[in-house]
Amino acid sequence: MKKKTLTTSKNFEIRFSEVDSMNFVWHGSYSSYFEDAREAFGTKYGLGYLMIFNNGYYAPLVDLSFKYKKPMTYNMTPRIEITYIPTETAKIIFDYAIYDNMDNSLIATGHSVQVFLDKQYQLVWYNPDFYTEWKKQWDIQ
Amino acid sequence: MKKKTLTTSKNFEIRFSEVDSMNFVWHGSYSSYFEDAREAFGTKYGLGYLMIFNNGYYAPLVDLSFKYKKPMTYNMTPRIEITYIPTETAKIIFDYAIYDNMDNSLIATGHSVQVFLDKQYQLVWYNPDFYTEWKKQWDIQ
Amino acid sequence: MKKKTLTTSKNFEIRFSEVDSMNFVWHGSYSSYFEDAREAFGTKYGLGYLMIFNNGYYAPLVDLSFKYKKPMTYNMTPRIEITYIPTETAKIIFDYAIYDNMDNSLIATGHSVQVFLDKQYQLVWYNPDFYTEWKKQWDIQ
Amino acid sequence: MKKKTLTTSKNFEIRFSEVDSMNFVWHGSYSSYFEDAREAFGTKYGLGYLMIFNNGYYAPLVDLSFKYKKPMTYNMTPRIEITYIPTETAKIIFDYAIYDNMDNSLIATGHSVQVFLDKQYQLVWYNPDFYTEWKKQWDIQ
Repeated sequence: MKKKTLTTSKNFEIRFSEVDSMNFVWHGSYSSYFEDAREAFGTKYGLGYLMIFNNGYYAPLVDLSFKYKKPMTYNMTPRIEITYIPTETAKIIFDYAIYDNMDNSLIATGHSVQVFLDKQYQLVWYNPDFYTEWKKQWDIQ
Repeated sequence: MKKKTLTTSKNFEIRFSEVDSMNFVWHGSYSSYFEDAREAFGTKYGLGYLMIFNNGYYAPLVDLSFKYKKPMTYNMTPRIEITYIPTETAKIIFDYAIYDNMDNSLIATGHSVQVFLDKQYQLVWYNPDFYTEWKKQWDIQ
Repeated sequence: MKKKTLTTSKNFEIRFSEVDSMNFVWHGSYSSYFEDAREAFGTKYGLGYLMIFNNGYYAPLVDLSFKYKKPMTYNMTPRIEITYIPTETAKIIFDYAIYDNMDNSLIATGHSVQVFLDKQYQLVWYNPDFYTEWKKQWDIQ
Repeated sequence: MKKKTLTTSKNFEIRFSEVDSMNFVWHGSYSSYFEDAREAFGTKYGLGYLMIFNNGYYAPLVDLSFKYKKPMTYNMTPRIEITYIPTETAKIIFDYAIYDNMDNSLIATGHSVQVFLDKQYQLVWYNPDFYTEWKKQWDIQ
């Protein structure tokens, strides 16, 4: 049986400053698009940066990867899809995919893993209570 | 009689990601160059971000301006000069100039004004003691 | 008699990466907000980056200034207003104001001046035809 | 027998604007550090962005990954090491490691893969002549 997943999708605009001298969106800008997607996910499902912070935690990235499938250019109207990957460990794991809305072609994919730190910046090995509650709320095992 | 000023100069490298699709350094990148210059000044004269912070203050910008005289391109080897502008008010004021080291032509000028906030983010109207001491140390009136 | 002006307004979201260690939006990020406002203006009135480019010109900034009135923080829902300032010279001039939508308080103001370069990067002293047409279309004198 | 590798190392300064509200260097800033390392490598061994461009090619990233081992903070004096990974395919592959100079502890590692595009933005499947020459020059098989 397939595990329950949560996903959301967001159209976004490319900033002029994100385009490099090859006339492509600079590869480093995708870090911001992924972060925007996490916040859009967080707003929809209640797991945003401020919600995590207000529960007493930080959730820094420990793994981040990108696969660039085709160049993104300024005239494109892209969208990003983010999917929560269930895990039993004290981690937040996401997959990402960026598409060109014009023809639905794939521009890039990616993956990220976040861990929890408490406010003294100590790594938290167990699932924070609020995160366990959050999983229960969305029926994630 | 001319007031005493303090100044420093720093060569810097242009990042590929700072170049836009016109093949010019993106105008917004100059904010970083100015900030780098403030830190170089702070390292030389003892007025860096961490020094201000460790004395109990933040020093956010309230005014910032740029005049772009000629485009900066990736193959240039530029330098930035920063000059402290004496003031009796509780402010830190700097002038900036960016030059092309190849021919000493002027690329850009600028100006910034910083104020002091305490750690409760309240504006400080008087000169913080450490700043008064700092001025005295460098014979600034 | 008051000169005709054009203006537009845009709500925007703050990126986590734009917030600095003071928990304020980093001052340099405002360059991007202003640029986003120019593009929103360009989309509404037909004077965007690609439209200028497709007419054979670049329009780099020669003047840019910011006045930071109060700190912008991650939990704010700000908007930016951009106003075209009529001029007879071959320039594009804008005023900017960023407001906190919560209480309509003013966060920052700014000003920019752009000139025209042809595709050989030469400064254009006269109004390009497309720009003269554009002014006529919007009844700007 | 071990394949010949090329490597270089570079100390770097953290920009205030690269520090986020957790007081860590924002994860996305590492893209710039990696790019700086590629340019330092390119300057030392003759494979920089402009050298590739002047030979008629772009070399965009198709793969990029980061493993964040411990947070980087503003007061650190880090260095980045970049190692060229030999390949027979028409790719440029690098490994990266960022260290804290204070105690030589590992801050992050990473990996990147670049391909070649010609000036018409078409993917080049074979090794460009200049790249074959470059490998021969450095005795890379």
